[in-house]
Amino acid sequence: MGGLYLGLGAGLLAMLIVVIFIKSVLSKEEGSDVMKKIARQIQIGAAAFLRREYIYISVVVIVIAVIMIAAKKYFGFGSAISFVWGAFVSASAGAIGMTMTTRANVRTTYAASKKGMRSALNIAISGGAVMGLSVVGIALIGLVILLFAFRVFGENDPAMFVKKLGTINAYAMGASLFALFARAGGGIYTKGADMGADLVGKVEAGIPEDDPRNPAVIADNVGDNVGDTAGLGADLLESYVESMIASMVLAATTVSYGMTRLTAENIVMVKDIIQMIISIAAAGIFSSILGVFYVKLSARKNPQSALLGGTYIASVLTIIFSALIINSLGVSIVEESTGNVYGKWGFFWSIVSGIISGIIIGFVSEYYTSSRFKPVQKLAESCETGPAIGVVGGISLGLKSAFLPVIAIVFAIIISNSQAGMLGVGLASFGMLVTTGMIVSVDSYGPVADNAGGIAEMAGLPENVREITDELDAVGNTTAAIGKGFAIGSAAYAALGLLTAYLSSTGIKMEDLALSSIKVMAGLLMGGMLPFLISSLLFEAVEKEAFKMVEEVRRQFREIKGLMEGKAEPDSRTCVDIATKSALHGMMLPGGIAILTPIVVGVIFGPITLAATLVGAIVTGIIIGIQYANSGGGMDNAKKYIEEGNFGGKGSEAHKASVVGDTVGDPMKDTVGPSINILIKLMSVISLVMVPFLRELNGLIWRLF
Amino acid sequence: MGGLYLGLGAGLLAMLIVVIFIKSVLSKEEGSDVMKKIARQIQIGAAAFLRREYIYISVVVIVIAVIMIAAKKYFGFGSAISFVWGAFVSASAGAIGMTMTTRANVRTTYAASKKGMRSALNIAISGGAVMGLSVVGIALIGLVILLFAFRVFGENDPAMFVKKLGTINAYAMGASLFALFARAGGGIYTKGADMGADLVGKVEAGIPEDDPRNPAVIADNVGDNVGDTAGLGADLLESYVESMIASMVLAATTVSYGMTRLTAENIVMVKDIIQMIISIAAAGIFSSILGVFYVKLSARKNPQSALLGGTYIASVLTIIFSALIINSLGVSIVEESTGNVYGKWGFFWSIVSGIISGIIIGFVSEYYTSSRFKPVQKLAESCETGPAIGVVGGISLGLKSAFLPVIAIVFAIIISNSQAGMLGVGLASFGMLVTTGMIVSVDSYGPVADNAGGIAEMAGLPENVREITDELDAVGNTTAAIGKGFAIGSAAYAALGLLTAYLSSTGIKMEDLALSSIKVMAGLLMGGMLPFLISSLLFEAVEKEAFKMVEEVRRQFREIKGLMEGKAEPDSRTCVDIATKSALHGMMLPGGIAILTPIVVGVIFGPITLAATLVGAIVTGIIIGIQYANSGGGMDNAKKYIEEGNFGGKGSEAHKASVVGDTVGDPMKDTVGPSINILIKLMSVISLVMVPFLRELNGLIWRLF
Repeated sequence: MGGLYLGLGAGLLAMLIVVIFIKSVLSKEEGSDVMKKIARQIQIGAAAFLRREYIYISVVVIVIAVIMIAAKKYFGFGSAISFVWGAFVSASAGAIGMTMTTRANVRTTYAASKKGMRSALNIAISGGAVMGLSVVGIALIGLVILLFAFRVFGENDPAMFVKKLGTINAYAMGASLFALFARAGGGIYTKGADMGADLVGKVEAGIPEDDPRNPAVIADNVGDNVGDTAGLGADLLESYVESMIASMVLAATTVSYGMTRLTAENIVMVKDIIQMIISIAAAGIFSSILGVFYVKLSARKNPQSALLGGTYIASVLTIIFSALIINSLGVSIVEESTGNVYGKWGFFWSIVSGIISGIIIGFVSEYYTSSRFKPVQKLAESCETGPAIGVVGGISLGLKSAFLPVIAIVFAIIISNSQAGMLGVGLASFGMLVTTGMIVSVDSYGPVADNAGGIAEMAGLPENVREITDELDAVGNTTAAIGKGFAIGSAAYAALGLLTAYLSSTGIKMEDLALSSIKVMAGLLMGGMLPFLISSLLFEAVEKEAFKMVEEVRRQFREIKGLMEGKAEPDSRTCVDIATKSALHGMMLPGGIAILTPIVVGVIFGPITLAATLVGAIVTGIIIGIQYANSGGGMDNAKKYIEEGNFGGKGSEAHKASVVGDTVGDPMKDTVGPSINILIKLMSVISLVMVPFLRELNGLIWRLF
Repeated sequence: MGGLYLGLGAGLLAMLIVVIFIKSVLSKEEGSDVMKKIARQIQIGAAAFLRREYIYISVVVIVIAVIMIAAKKYFGFGSAISFVWGAFVSASAGAIGMTMTTRANVRTTYAASKKGMRSALNIAISGGAVMGLSVVGIALIGLVILLFAFRVFGENDPAMFVKKLGTINAYAMGASLFALFARAGGGIYTKGADMGADLVGKVEAGIPEDDPRNPAVIADNVGDNVGDTAGLGADLLESYVESMIASMVLAATTVSYGMTRLTAENIVMVKDIIQMIISIAAAGIFSSILGVFYVKLSARKNPQSALLGGTYIASVLTIIFSALIINSLGVSIVEESTGNVYGKWGFFWSIVSGIISGIIIGFVSEYYTSSRFKPVQKLAESCETGPAIGVVGGISLGLKSAFLPVIAIVFAIIISNSQAGMLGVGLASFGMLVTTGMIVSVDSYGPVADNAGGIAEMAGLPENVREITDELDAVGNTTAAIGKGFAIGSAAYAALGLLTAYLSSTGIKMEDLALSSIKVMAGLLMGGMLPFLISSLLFEAVEKEAFKMVEEVRRQFREIKGLMEGKAEPDSRTCVDIATKSALHGMMLPGGIAILTPIVVGVIFGPITLAATLVGAIVTGIIIGIQYANSGGGMDNAKKYIEEGNFGGKGSEAHKASVVGDTVGDPMKDTVGPSINILIKLMSVISLVMVPFLRELNGLIWRLF
């Protein structure tokens, strides 16, 4: 059980660093009273939203847990506990991380104003690292605790072992359920507020972004934290947990000691593979910690190269550590369905193929969304012909950007499958996520820098402060593109891993899953359509919030005397309240559909059609996830490119057109795209947890037709 | 062979009516010299484009035919002839139809100005019916001629029979290839010209639509004919032919006298089913002719109810005739893969389920795109918050509108499959398309009415003439929505039918097609991505043309003195030339990808992954086809709804926002959506034709991994 203790140790180490970073950030100066007041408003708004969001989600979690306990024939008490635990773990990581980013922001602003770039970067990355290391630390500790609590490693009876391991699936389901609501709720919140603030402020009233007179600005800044930090953290925590659990299930079910043929003798091999996974996860945490320290130490040079360098160092170290861990292993496996034999180095290459394809997807995102390359420059040019052509250009950029990532994913699954069968696909997904700690640290750094800029603007600090925070923000955008690539890629792999685990657990016969079967075709069509339906609901929720926000901001500009002259204060609370309510309301229907679909399809159409539904949703989900992320990113940066002075610069017709494009792209990249990533994982993991129940179903509809 | 003669007779009858309608339309007055001149410009522009488009396509057709003859081991001379014949048939129908609509338009305008609504409707529907009846008449005659030429019915040796029937697949491939280029080329032409004309004319210069001073207006009107008439005709001709051929192949390959067990004794049953299909097609032509006459006779009342009535009458008559034909049949079949026995009434219900689901899809399209219902009204309201929210609203409307059609398709395939196995799915697709003659007549009527309005505007005729043509146009839009539903639904079914025919012809084992296989998963992902890639290329082509058009119109407004005062004439020829070149250039890459994908995937990944690629493309293709059609239609009608005086009416902020939305939606509904429908059919039919070649492949890549 050495691997488990290693995992526990790495998790605890991560949390120790988190505590150190928290102390260090909190010891920093907050600046003037105005800055403190603004920061306080953001903190209060964010905390209030998170509290209410958590209450909503808790109700859903409790209802599901009760159902699981009631249907103990299929799930039982252990699964219910795992499930609640998974949700709790995700909630804790989100709460810790977000509390910290809403405190690091103002301190970053102050450091930028008094001590310059290096100090500011240092605080911002510490704030981000609290989120990043909390995510991996808490998630890994939580998983190891469950493995201990259910005495999985003490079990030597094959059937009981598989059953005990199965209860841990619900841990991933808890984290996933939490993530969907956090991402959808946070995403709706942030983009509705952002669009509302921009539409009236920038477009109608002609005042700058983050202007203190705009009552929606605080809500917008709260949104950055609840959406981009808490939502993103929950998203990657979920992928991280799922990729590990999918690999564990695959180790136990697809190889020739799986299900039917697992014996008391070879059960030790499954345990070895599980320990390997936990050990590599521990290595990933060490590497991420080293990566974060590299950023902090090399920050005096170029912030861009510091962040990129940290990310690469974490990846390379992980690969080296993985090789060492695997080298000490003595297993080889036989895949049951094919009879192929795979050695331990097959595991290694599977993990590497996942890491490399993640980097490729990241670079493609970067290519399509950075203004240094042709696509965004051409998009900016097309804005000269007005908003319609700009929007069409942005949509077509996103559509096209799915090509290379899909090819990269296809090759990664082909290679990892050739190296270690279906287990290889699971390990590829895990490989991509081993450095989650570093990725989330860098990604959470972004909103801190963004917020810091907002506070500088609202507090009326000198131009040069804003310049520093803007540079920090711009650097964050580039690394965030790579992080986004990992998020999308990992969602794709995690979903594929879970799907494979689902298929191997249900024991459906291969010929029943044939594409030529009506049951499969019906499922593919329904599943393929789901991401479109959920996207539509999310767009609508953002639209509704933005609509209300616009009305409210217009009302305040009209009714609050002296506001535009800067003599009166805007009523930010009402805007925060509108955003909170709209987000909570808007997340329920898409979340509900995601939860209920596996159950409804399973009962009406049976487990075969459900498998096909999952596949359909994964295929379209991956593609539109990439499309929306890059359409939105491209339109955002096309606007920035024009603002840098190209095609007429700020105030030109091209700029106006690009603002429309950016506003269309905002909910695509920050609400819909990320939520769709979670949708496909959540549906897959719910199906996996439901396997004991689904196995008894045949699908009501087939009795009719 | 009675069925074949019946088919031939029905086709000849359709062509006789076509000749009568042509004579009748040409005998009508063309109006003043100005009107004649405008009409002549449209005719010349349209004919010039068609000529050049046909030359481009001919080159592609000849190259492919030569390859087929060269690779005679797999295809042979017969297939090459069928292929060229299919392309020729489609070209002829398009040429006849479009020549006529470009002559009916000005005569409709004149009739509206002198004789009123009824006369105008009469000419417009005659013009449309020339296209509609040519499509079905020529297609059916062409098919029957092939069946005679290859002596399919004289063949009693089972293997030779299947082989001879197989050569006819290439007939569908020819029609399909032609359709893709016609739809994509025509679609790019019409929307690039439309956007270019509107962006400078309406938005920048503030002159009305179809204003004679705008040099892009002629190109826009040409576009209506080459895109909405010739393109749509080729599209439905293809679906019509494919649904028949897919059903024939399925009759020969999936039932228990199929492939391996077809004997000299029971071969007669396959022939009976083929005759049944041809006979029902003949009945559909009779019904369509009666439907067209109903419209002409009842036109004095309400034009809306006349067109809808004609469509319903054609559908009901077809169902009745089908019942009579099937009743006289004496077959029952056993499906080979399942062992299920299906009676002749199973065929009937399969056909009926296709027709009913087509009507449901049509109504859903209508619900989401007509301003009489809530979605468009809400969309119009959201335009009050500016163009960005309007565009997001339009996108989300389209995304959501895919839900019910997909469910309708799922139930139709489940029901038809339960009634007659895989043959049932083919028959459902055929059922939907039996009344193609009527559907195309009504759909082609639309552009005639639209053009008539344009001519009235350009010729400066009195307001009341424009009112009549506008009403004719509005009626056309409603019935076109139903027609569009049929086009999408039928594409879905035709593709599924072809796919099933492909799967049954390759003889791939069921377990090799399992969703859990890496070969299948890789194909699904690649195929699912293709419609996104092709969409992107089409959007870009439209964008490029619009960009050039905008530059040119701006140039003419700037450089031609006296143009804005109406003293000088615009240079319409240059605009027509830009549109022609851009469209021909833009259609080549997406067309090429569609043709090459089955070949490249087949060679690199083998026939199993190709099957999955087709399935992936069909699933996402159906959904984004519906999404784009309804997003575009919804945004178009939201604009019209605002123009009727809602939310501030013309000139309001909401109206400006809706113009942006409409411009974004235009290429979605008229270029991308329809082309994607054809893409999935074309890839499927190419794969079907390539079966003899593909059967020998294993996929190069699997030797590496």
